[in-house]
Amino acid sequence: MKVYSGEIDLKTRGEGDIIDLSNQIVEHVKKSGVRNGLVSVFAVGSTVALTTMEYESGLKKDLIDALERIAPRDSEYQHHLRWGDYNGHSHVRASIVGPSLTIPLINGEVILGTWQQVVLLELDIRPRSRKVIVTVMGD
Amino acid sequence: MKVYSGEIDLKTRGEGDIIDLSNQIVEHVKKSGVRNGLVSVFAVGSTVALTTMEYESGLKKDLIDALERIAPRDSEYQHHLRWGDYNGHSHVRASIVGPSLTIPLINGEVILGTWQQVVLLELDIRPRSRKVIVTVMGD
Amino acid sequence: MKVYSGEIDLKTRGEGDIIDLSNQIVEHVKKSGVRNGLVSVFAVGSTVALTTMEYESGLKKDLIDALERIAPRDSEYQHHLRWGDYNGHSHVRASIVGPSLTIPLINGEVILGTWQQVVLLELDIRPRSRKVIVTVMGD
Repeated sequence: MKVYSGEIDLKTRGEGDIIDLSNQIVEHVKKSGVRNGLVSVFAVGSTVALTTMEYESGLKKDLIDALERIAPRDSEYQHHLRWGDYNGHSHVRASIVGPSLTIPLINGEVILGTWQQVVLLELDIRPRSRKVIVTVMGD
Repeated sequence: MKVYSGEIDLKTRGEGDIIDLSNQIVEHVKKSGVRNGLVSVFAVGSTVALTTMEYESGLKKDLIDALERIAPRDSEYQHHLRWGDYNGHSHVRASIVGPSLTIPLINGEVILGTWQQVVLLELDIRPRSRKVIVTVMGD
Repeated sequence: MKVYSGEIDLKTRGEGDIIDLSNQIVEHVKKSGVRNGLVSVFAVGSTVALTTMEYESGLKKDLIDALERIAPRDSEYQHHLRWGDYNGHSHVRASIVGPSLTIPLINGEVILGTWQQVVLLELDIRPRSRKVIVTVMGD
């Protein structure tokens, strides 16, 4: 049984940027040498989230539109009154989507659907440097 | 320390179908022989999701109603313009709920609340064959 | 490779109560003796959820406001017709946010952002006793 820990570092273009992490996750899994077990992916920060989706430009827009329904950019946020950084909607969206995913690993293959990619959602209102931790555990 | 990987295969009745996977998960845990550790459950595909809920017919309807607020079926979706498959809302709902769950395993028992079942949400607009991977790791 | 299982027991003040679990999670990790691997956190129950957020009072209000958009307290819920306990919105919110998180552990440190805490969301309409399971696996 092995534990491997790797990091994906990236720069985002700001609000609504959605980045496909699938290939970089597969690279970390190869480096880990683990063939069967679990791959945990975790986004560090409170205005960023992880999920899976069919990675195509139409859906990227559609997903952000839905998050706008949940936490509209122009609503009033208590967070703004306190901090004046005007990203209350970013925080709320991130908490609802969540920062972590756990994906099965079987015979060296990360198990995802053909049209299912692992994506990072940049929800903050400005470009950010982001860190994603990839942990691989198993045999 | 052991790693066990099992699969649940099922056919859904299409949009809004919610299926209780708890018993099949417990069966896989028994087969694994693992007594303490983690059970990871992952739904393969980009128009399907996993979560937990009290599995009763009223709440099944209530949950779908809430997803309709987040991503209404009759909104405009960029995904439709591109692919013409009219399931943009299905994709968006799946990304927000998410495909993965990790559940504790203690003394051979999968730890869930009395009124808390693990469910698959079929969010696509037609009946689908679905695959769920159950990974059990521990002692 | 070790498996450790701990429990956080707490009493909530009812709907909208959000509790920072980060310190208690770190305590369990220390007790586990595990230095590298994964920390899984799971909330038992169907009207409670876990996520991460910047733990400050403004955002606690903002997050509940967003959940009110998704599942308004005063909507009609089929769950009420069946059970008469008037917490249909609580169940729906819990299923959408989800009960589980998996967080990386590197050199004895639980990897979270500076402004990112692990929180329990009490979504039920009355004060509850809650149980959260912390599982630590690794070397």
